[in-house]
Amino acid sequence: MSKEITARSEDYSQWYNDLVIKGSLADYSAVRGCMVIKPYGFALWENMRDALDKMFKETGHQNAYFPLFVPKSLFEAEEKNAEGFAKECAVVTHYRLKADPDHKGKLLVDPESKLEEELVVRPTSEAIIWSTYKDWIQSYRDLPLLINQWANVVRWEMRTRLFLRTTEFLWQEGHTAHATEEEAIAETKKMLEVYATFAEEFMALPVIRGVKTESERFAGAVDTYCIEALMQDGKALQAGTSHFLGQNFAKAFDVKFLNKENKQEYVWATSWGVSTRLIGALVMAHGDDKGLVLPPRIAPFQVVIVPIYKGEESKAVIDAKAQEMMKELQAAGIRVKYDDNDNARPGWKFAEYEMKGIPLRLAMGLRDMENKVIELARRDTSEKQVLPMEGLTEKIKTLLEEIQASLYNKAAAYREEHITKADSWDEFIQLLDEKGGFVSAHWDGTADTEEVIKEKAKATIRCIPLHNEKEEGQCILTGKPSAQRVLFARAY
Amino acid sequence: MSKEITARSEDYSQWYNDLVIKGSLADYSAVRGCMVIKPYGFALWENMRDALDKMFKETGHQNAYFPLFVPKSLFEAEEKNAEGFAKECAVVTHYRLKADPDHKGKLLVDPESKLEEELVVRPTSEAIIWSTYKDWIQSYRDLPLLINQWANVVRWEMRTRLFLRTTEFLWQEGHTAHATEEEAIAETKKMLEVYATFAEEFMALPVIRGVKTESERFAGAVDTYCIEALMQDGKALQAGTSHFLGQNFAKAFDVKFLNKENKQEYVWATSWGVSTRLIGALVMAHGDDKGLVLPPRIAPFQVVIVPIYKGEESKAVIDAKAQEMMKELQAAGIRVKYDDNDNARPGWKFAEYEMKGIPLRLAMGLRDMENKVIELARRDTSEKQVLPMEGLTEKIKTLLEEIQASLYNKAAAYREEHITKADSWDEFIQLLDEKGGFVSAHWDGTADTEEVIKEKAKATIRCIPLHNEKEEGQCILTGKPSAQRVLFARAY
Repeated sequence: MSKEITARSEDYSQWYNDLVIKGSLADYSAVRGCMVIKPYGFALWENMRDALDKMFKETGHQNAYFPLFVPKSLFEAEEKNAEGFAKECAVVTHYRLKADPDHKGKLLVDPESKLEEELVVRPTSEAIIWSTYKDWIQSYRDLPLLINQWANVVRWEMRTRLFLRTTEFLWQEGHTAHATEEEAIAETKKMLEVYATFAEEFMALPVIRGVKTESERFAGAVDTYCIEALMQDGKALQAGTSHFLGQNFAKAFDVKFLNKENKQEYVWATSWGVSTRLIGALVMAHGDDKGLVLPPRIAPFQVVIVPIYKGEESKAVIDAKAQEMMKELQAAGIRVKYDDNDNARPGWKFAEYEMKGIPLRLAMGLRDMENKVIELARRDTSEKQVLPMEGLTEKIKTLLEEIQASLYNKAAAYREEHITKADSWDEFIQLLDEKGGFVSAHWDGTADTEEVIKEKAKATIRCIPLHNEKEEGQCILTGKPSAQRVLFARAY
Repeated sequence: MSKEITARSEDYSQWYNDLVIKGSLADYSAVRGCMVIKPYGFALWENMRDALDKMFKETGHQNAYFPLFVPKSLFEAEEKNAEGFAKECAVVTHYRLKADPDHKGKLLVDPESKLEEELVVRPTSEAIIWSTYKDWIQSYRDLPLLINQWANVVRWEMRTRLFLRTTEFLWQEGHTAHATEEEAIAETKKMLEVYATFAEEFMALPVIRGVKTESERFAGAVDTYCIEALMQDGKALQAGTSHFLGQNFAKAFDVKFLNKENKQEYVWATSWGVSTRLIGALVMAHGDDKGLVLPPRIAPFQVVIVPIYKGEESKAVIDAKAQEMMKELQAAGIRVKYDDNDNARPGWKFAEYEMKGIPLRLAMGLRDMENKVIELARRDTSEKQVLPMEGLTEKIKTLLEEIQASLYNKAAAYREEHITKADSWDEFIQLLDEKGGFVSAHWDGTADTEEVIKEKAKATIRCIPLHNEKEEGQCILTGKPSAQRVLFARAY
C-alpha cells in the first residue's frame, strides 16, 4: 500500500489532509493559500453545484455574472461590510508588467501602470452587484429581482486548510431585491431551507438551522441565518449562511423603487452563499480510516467494477460482460466506472476506491461469472455479499438509496448524542474538553459575555436555533437572567 | 416603442451595442472594461457552455480548477508566453486595506501588506497549470493528461467592446499533456474540430479551419490552429484557437516523464480555448434590425407564448390552455416561456421577443382557440402562419430544426459570397474597402511582408486554411514567389 492514511484517533487534522490529498480531491498549489481542485474533487463539486443550481432555479432564481473587481470607492460604500472585509482583501494596483532591465528574461511591475483607483478582488459581491441594481430597479414591477452567481472569491487568510479555509474559493452567492421587508425575510428563510435540504438530502449531512448572534453576523447584515453541522471530532462547521440585509445596501448605493402608491422607497435585500467549504464538511462528516466515504447522490462514481482475471483470454470475457453491465447500469441512471487498467492489481484497486469513497464496488471474476453471481462490497459498512447477476441493477439502486439514508442516520445519531445541556461553567468547559459537540447553555444575551466565553473556552455561539424552546435560566458565565439556551461549540 | 435599435446600414457598431444591451445580454459595469452578463445573456452562455462541456467530456477530458493568481516568478518561466501577456496583466501587490486616518469611512491600501512577490491575475493558465503538472506527471502511465477548466481570466484592454473584448471574460481553457509529438498534434486538431462542430451545429456559424502565421500565433505556441467566422459587416472574427505548444512549457517548468524505455523525456503539450466572445460572434452573425436572432439549439427560450385577451375571463381561459401547451412542449424537450404579464400590451411583447431573438412566437387569442388554431411567427424570416392546434408540438419541433438549418445556410451563403480572390494589390485593397469578407491572395511567407500589409491595408492574415490548395503565384505586395494563397481580412 503506497497510500497510508493517518488514523483519526492519532491525528484528526492529518487524517483530514490525507483524505483530501490521497483521495485526489485537491492539492496545495504554488500560490500561498490557494488550492488546486483535482478532477475527482471537481466532479464532486459539479454534482453538488448542479443539484443546488436546480434548486435555485426551481425557486425562481436566475444566474448572472458580475465583475471580479470592485473599485475601492464602491467597496467602501457600505461601511460595515467594507470594515468587515478590509483586512483580507487582495488589491490590484497595476495593470502592466515590463522587462526588467537588470535581469534578462525577468519582469517588473511597470510603475507607470499604477491605477488611479485600486481594485479589490471580490471577497463577496454585494458592493458591485448593488451598484448595478441601481440601474436595474426603478419600479415595483422590477421586483423581486432574484439573482445568483457562481464565482470565485478571494479572502486573504493567514492560516489556510484545503477546502475549509483557502484564500481563493469557489462559491455561489445569491443577491435578491424586494419591495417589502416581509418578503425579503421570507426569501432569507426560504434559501436557508434550500441549503438545509441540500445538506441533508444530497450530502447526508444533518444540520441545525439557526440565527447568528450580532457579533457573528455577516458584515452589513441585519440578521444572519445559518446551517451548522457537526464533524466527527466534535467540532462544529458553518455549512451555509443566508443574510437579511435590510435596506443597508440599498441606502449605501441609493437603490430606490417607485411603489404602487407612486412613492420612492429603498429596496430590501438578501444575500446567501455556500462554497467549496462544503466539500471539507463532507470529508469530515463521513470519512473513515480507510478514506473518503461519499454519499451516492453526489458521488462522481456510484459503482466501480474491478475485473479479476488471469491472462488475456479471461480478461476479454470479463470485459465483454462488464461493458454490458455498464450499459445497463448507465441506462438506469447510475454513474459507473470500469477499471480495466492492466498496470494495477485488484488489491491495489480495492484500496484505491475505498480511499476515493465510491459507495459500491463490484469484483468480477471468471468463476463467479460462470455461476452467474458477482461479489459486491459496500464502502460505508465494508460488508461484502455475493449476489445473483439477475436483477443486479435494481438491487444496486436500492442499495445506493440505503447507503444514502444510512450515512445520514449515522451522522444524525452522532449529532444527537453530541448536543448536551450544560448548567454551570465547569460543566460547560468539561463538556467542551471531554465530549465535544454542541453545548446547549444559557447566555445573558450580551456581546461582552459572548466575547469572554470565546476567549476563555475557545468556543463560539454557533447559533440560536430556529423555533428554539423558551426556557428561563441563568447565564453560565455571569449568572444573569437568560430567556433561552443557545448552542455553543468549538468550530472550524 | 421605447427600445429603438440603430439600423445596421446606419451604424453597424452602434447596432451591435444596441442588440447586446437592449437584448438584455450584457451591460457595462462600474469597473473599467468589465461587463455584467445579465440573466438572459448568462442563460445563453450556460447553454453554450453545457454543449461544449459535454463534447469535452465525450472526448475524454475532465474538469479541474487552478488558482486565479500566478506568482510573478512562475509567470516569467515561459519567456515568450510571459512577454506576450506582460503588457496586459492586472497585478495584485497588497493583501489588506486599512482605515484612512484622514477621511472617516474611507479605506487605504495598507502599505505594510505589500506582497514579497507580486501575483498576476491569470490572463491564461499555462504557467500555473504546468507548474502543477510537474507534480502530477512522472511516468508514461500518467499520460495523456486531458484537463479542462472553466474560469474567468483578465487581460487589461485599452479599448473594450461588450463580449468581443473585455478586461475580464469567461472562458474554458483545455490543457493537455502527451507522451509524443504526434499525439499532441492530433489532440490540437481534434479540439479544433470540436470547436468547429460546436460553432456550426449549435451556433449555426460556419467557420474556416486554419492555422495562424507565426506572427499571429499564441505566445509560447509552436502552432496555433483557429476557426475564423465572418460577420455581416464583412469583418472576420476569430472564434476559437487550439495550440500545439511543443515542449515549450514542459521545458520551462521541467515536466519530464519516464517513457516505456525507462528514459526521461519532456512532455508534449496543447492548450485550447473559447470564450464569451462567441456571444459577440453570435449577435453579429445572425442579428437583424429588429434585434437578436438566436439559433434554436442554444436559445434560452425556443418558443414564447403571448396571450391576447380582453378582460379577466378570457385571460383565465387562455391561461388554462397555455399551461397545458407549456407542459406538452416542455415534455417534448422544448424551452418555452409564457408571458402573462399584465403590465405590457401584446404589441410591446412582440417587439420585446423579437429584440430578444426567440425563434418562435405563438399568439394565443380566444377566437383562434375556439377555431382550434394558433398564430405562429418565425423570428428569422418574420413569416406568420395560422396553424391547427392539433399536432402543434411536432410542427414546432420541425420548425426549430428548419430555423437552425436556415440560419446556418444563410450565414454560409454570405460567407461563400465573401471569399474573393485578389491577384494584385489594387484589387486587394478594393475588395477590402468595397466588398469586405475574406480575400484569398498570395503572400511571400515572410513576417515583414505580413506586417507591411497589416499597416497599409489594416487587414491581417486570418489563417492558412487546412487542406489549402497548393497554387504557385506572386505575393500581392512584393511580387515574390508564393506556394499558396492565404486568407486576409479586416477583423474584430
